[in-house]
Amino acid sequence: MKNFFLIFSLFLMTVSCNNLNNESRPNFIVIFVDDLGYGDLGSYGHPTIKTPTLDKLAYEGQKWTQFYSASSVCTPSRAALLTGRLPIRNGMIGSKTRVFFPDSQYGIPDSEITIAEKLKENGYKNAIIGKWHLGHKKEYLPLQHGFDYYFGIPYSNDMDPINGVTCCPGPRYWQQYEKKRPDSSNYNVPLIENNNIIERPADQTTITKRYSDKAVEFIRDNKKNNFFLYLAHNLPHTPLYASDEFTGKSKRGLYGDVVEEIDHGIGRIIDELERNNLDRNTIVIFTSDNGPWLPFESQSGSAGLLREGKGSTWEGGHRVPGIFWGGGIKSSVIDDLGSTMDIFPTILEMSNSGQVDDRIIDGLSIKNTLLNLEPSNREKVIFYREREVYALRYRQFKAHFITKGVYNYPYPDIKTYMEKPLLYNLDIDPSEKYNIADENPEILKKIYEVLESHQNNLNATEDLLQYRDNDGNIDGINDSFD
Amino acid sequence: MKNFFLIFSLFLMTVSCNNLNNESRPNFIVIFVDDLGYGDLGSYGHPTIKTPTLDKLAYEGQKWTQFYSASSVCTPSRAALLTGRLPIRNGMIGSKTRVFFPDSQYGIPDSEITIAEKLKENGYKNAIIGKWHLGHKKEYLPLQHGFDYYFGIPYSNDMDPINGVTCCPGPRYWQQYEKKRPDSSNYNVPLIENNNIIERPADQTTITKRYSDKAVEFIRDNKKNNFFLYLAHNLPHTPLYASDEFTGKSKRGLYGDVVEEIDHGIGRIIDELERNNLDRNTIVIFTSDNGPWLPFESQSGSAGLLREGKGSTWEGGHRVPGIFWGGGIKSSVIDDLGSTMDIFPTILEMSNSGQVDDRIIDGLSIKNTLLNLEPSNREKVIFYREREVYALRYRQFKAHFITKGVYNYPYPDIKTYMEKPLLYNLDIDPSEKYNIADENPEILKKIYEVLESHQNNLNATEDLLQYRDNDGNIDGINDSFD
Repeated sequence: MKNFFLIFSLFLMTVSCNNLNNESRPNFIVIFVDDLGYGDLGSYGHPTIKTPTLDKLAYEGQKWTQFYSASSVCTPSRAALLTGRLPIRNGMIGSKTRVFFPDSQYGIPDSEITIAEKLKENGYKNAIIGKWHLGHKKEYLPLQHGFDYYFGIPYSNDMDPINGVTCCPGPRYWQQYEKKRPDSSNYNVPLIENNNIIERPADQTTITKRYSDKAVEFIRDNKKNNFFLYLAHNLPHTPLYASDEFTGKSKRGLYGDVVEEIDHGIGRIIDELERNNLDRNTIVIFTSDNGPWLPFESQSGSAGLLREGKGSTWEGGHRVPGIFWGGGIKSSVIDDLGSTMDIFPTILEMSNSGQVDDRIIDGLSIKNTLLNLEPSNREKVIFYREREVYALRYRQFKAHFITKGVYNYPYPDIKTYMEKPLLYNLDIDPSEKYNIADENPEILKKIYEVLESHQNNLNATEDLLQYRDNDGNIDGINDSFD
Repeated sequence: MKNFFLIFSLFLMTVSCNNLNNESRPNFIVIFVDDLGYGDLGSYGHPTIKTPTLDKLAYEGQKWTQFYSASSVCTPSRAALLTGRLPIRNGMIGSKTRVFFPDSQYGIPDSEITIAEKLKENGYKNAIIGKWHLGHKKEYLPLQHGFDYYFGIPYSNDMDPINGVTCCPGPRYWQQYEKKRPDSSNYNVPLIENNNIIERPADQTTITKRYSDKAVEFIRDNKKNNFFLYLAHNLPHTPLYASDEFTGKSKRGLYGDVVEEIDHGIGRIIDELERNNLDRNTIVIFTSDNGPWLPFESQSGSAGLLREGKGSTWEGGHRVPGIFWGGGIKSSVIDDLGSTMDIFPTILEMSNSGQVDDRIIDGLSIKNTLLNLEPSNREKVIFYREREVYALRYRQFKAHFITKGVYNYPYPDIKTYMEKPLLYNLDIDPSEKYNIADENPEILKKIYEVLESHQNNLNATEDLLQYRDNDGNIDGINDSFD
């Protein structure tokens, strides 16, 4: 009898191991949070925000410490993640406005190819749960761009305010969330399922919990399929909301409550994977769309030791946590360069979905770093603000050609074209404190060459964010909730 | 035969578990590094300094995120650690100078009781390997204060410069380490074994490795005893030195090389404990004497998201990593308040050595947090600079009564008595950015009460750091090295 159990155990181990062979295709879960800063997780150094699940994933998997979002604001960052392309190439970039608003006219072009579209061709079931922000009219919604299921809000959670306060008119705007729990009925944000509005205004106090519920449900329903889950939490973007269970729980205040509720939900996802033995064949990726929205003061996150935050091309605007776990990923801290755009070719390669070769892809597959700890191939990071290159990182060096603060607060929002670029060695000086331009003319020369090469091969498209129709309608989708 | 192995294994497990019963006395290893900042370990958020051993200890054991050194500079911080008492009570505090120099006359008073003295009474073997800095004349050296063995340097590694440069004359001083690997023969620092000078100037390029060697040797020699090892690395205090094996290894530059060599040495200690099955009965504590010495720019560490560094009473001066591992300590992130002074009563309690009750002890035992995850009892942290209270933390709130920058650089070193204290909620605002004094008069009132109660029960002693004899001699100990 004992021998039987031994042999049966060995059999089970063999079956499990077979899930890891080269022929199997992994599942992918990309968790993309909103405005969470580089310093907002325990494993990235926050003292009072408790994130035990993400700390576990960072420790057991790979914690990337020089991982960049492709933009310092929402819409372009999301477009870059899903297409592997810089916003200047896919049109999701602004000159007059930096993100889509409820009166924006366009969305992600049909000509762009998303991760979901490639995976769908290859038999994956794809869901987006959370914030889309790549166009809210029907033709631009997720189901028309490769996803089989959508549950979430179409733009930011502070848009379409019922009381008429529009975004960012001045410092007073930032004070309104200081003392009280915001009322989500003040924002006429719709909650959409597939192509239908099912709730408006969305009850944002329960939205994180509902996203987690839906994510677990999607995994449970698809454990026999290959699946791709894009879980794009619309928090901790202000205004902040947590459920009753989490409100008042964190020493860090409401911001901490929100992050801890997200972490708890990710814990439920990991439990679900482990319970179904899916963790060995599912790659979980966690990152953020951009840095913390600092003008909200204690209602915003922290970029840790990095300078500035959301909206700027300083490190705090672009560098974000990057955690990779499961599916045979080797445990390590990785301080090579990485980008959210690298997720596109990595997922395509690991799923044997083929690559996209009829256009410029800015992402580089990091499969060999994830599975074999080989160095990443990335040598450069380009920091756009609107349609201009403000800064460029080449290996450890970053040059700033144009500097500008964030949203008029707390720094003057003066755009300055530098006579001589500022230069920092980010491996040594991640806080961008010690300008070394004078001592390193040859490095600046090299960076200009890299910039020129980039600009000579740009294939820039029109700015699609600028068009507004001012009617405030979400055309083409059904309001089925009343 | 199989059953025999099963029973034998159960027997071994039982034997091991017995080592954890209440009657056994644990060993203690306190690793105290010099000028390492809150943000300088991977697990505390540094992007490019690789500290896999300390990250493992932080993850498997307890990572304290609101842990404070008792002083923002060296001598008083070390005295407080070893006596559990504020420097204002044990005399290791300055009014004209803040630490001991090679011409200082005194050292730690014989009337003070160190951890080592209490443990020695109780049968422990005690070693200090590393920096002492509590008096370099014979009567003040470690062997006269409870230690059985001493191997290390008596004061800071930048003291007694042969070329006559004395510490801190101005900004130019800070530049000398910018570009080159410092030559340790420029500093006439003695290396002492027990009461004898064995090398002068000490070869600092190999000193970290030699400390690690000696630490492993001490553990090996004492595995049948109860032991206390105080490993006080004199780095990463500038000037920085790494061995050939580590120089050029870290992306972070020389500062990273130094920290990574320390981490590697700690890894050898952990291996030695695990190999001898001592990890279950040995408590390893890692912390720093104060924050990073920021004027050295890229040759100094980072306080991460905290404000300012060494020498100041802002968080960056006092808050340090605090890692506790082994001996049954329960894994967790702890954001309760803790102090290096708490190590004294904790070790005394856990070793059944009795407490010291004939004087004021500022430390509070954290045994119940370590073993049972109970909340720590600490409610206040008092921030002295010289003999004055500059700031006081009560629960999550910190009030600054006096502010002053660090060493004239990069901020003006102007001492300012605040008309109204600055007040920060550190749980929410660890970077001390948002003054909330105006809105919280009742909290300020409470903090003044705590301050008054502290000052009414001070038992302050004379400033023993001020006396200099100007002869530069290390009296009473033998120069046996030549």
